[in-house]
Amino acid sequence: MRDRMIFFKNNSKNMSTHKVETQFKGGMQFRSAVGNHRIIMDAGTADGGNDSGASPKRLMLASLAGCTGIDIVSILNKMKVAFSDFSIKTEAELTDEHPKIYDKVKIVYSIKVPAENKDKMEKAVNLSMDKYCGVSAMFSAFAEVSWEINFHS
Amino acid sequence: MRDRMIFFKNNSKNMSTHKVETQFKGGMQFRSAVGNHRIIMDAGTADGGNDSGASPKRLMLASLAGCTGIDIVSILNKMKVAFSDFSIKTEAELTDEHPKIYDKVKIVYSIKVPAENKDKMEKAVNLSMDKYCGVSAMFSAFAEVSWEINFHS
Repeated sequence: MRDRMIFFKNNSKNMSTHKVETQFKGGMQFRSAVGNHRIIMDAGTADGGNDSGASPKRLMLASLAGCTGIDIVSILNKMKVAFSDFSIKTEAELTDEHPKIYDKVKIVYSIKVPAENKDKMEKAVNLSMDKYCGVSAMFSAFAEVSWEINFHS
Repeated sequence: MRDRMIFFKNNSKNMSTHKVETQFKGGMQFRSAVGNHRIIMDAGTADGGNDSGASPKRLMLASLAGCTGIDIVSILNKMKVAFSDFSIKTEAELTDEHPKIYDKVKIVYSIKVPAENKDKMEKAVNLSMDKYCGVSAMFSAFAEVSWEINFHS
């Protein structure tokens, strides 16, 4: 326990700093170390790459889905709401001119919950989008972000 | 060639729309289909996850590095500048309050180029950051983005 406390003390500044290291691997391929995980990125064949990894820009849409998704699972678990078949579509429109950014982003949540808990799912999404999800807050600085929930049975 | 033209015509709208599908896989794990590539995300153990995949927020820093990295490789290739040992560190400071966003982001490029081509690398970075990299442009909407180049030999 003492070691653990010293660890946190020495690293207190780093706890609010995120670092990612990325290496060029030839062609147009890059590999990032994101914590303990390796992410491979590449340009598509139309842009001189080999499509050997994810497109960097589209990766932001995965980031958005993962961020709000983890929030919602965490909140539903705290509310003791049973759920299944949870998926998230993130869809973005690109501007025409360089630099091409996402200016409209839509998030579609699909989930199965007991009928009496639909309002709790709505509350969980609102809490994520308005309060907890940092990625969504960052997206809101450059895009119009909208969302909807499909309840399926 | 005719088939190719028809293909582009039918898909003209989709070319400016990006879509990512993400599924919940239990615990806090989510899996995204980014084009042909699967990205696994998870919360860390301190946040109720199993660290079985990348943290969604940190994934944005990989996206940033990949976007500007691919630009720079493309530009250096067009300029016929030989280079090697190219890597990119992306480091971001988080705000203290929810939603926690990145408010300061630093990009450190490390690269080996012939001494007479250092100015071309600087030009390539400027072109990426000012004109081409959409991810960098999106980051600039919510964060102070700075960069530097380490030329190594």
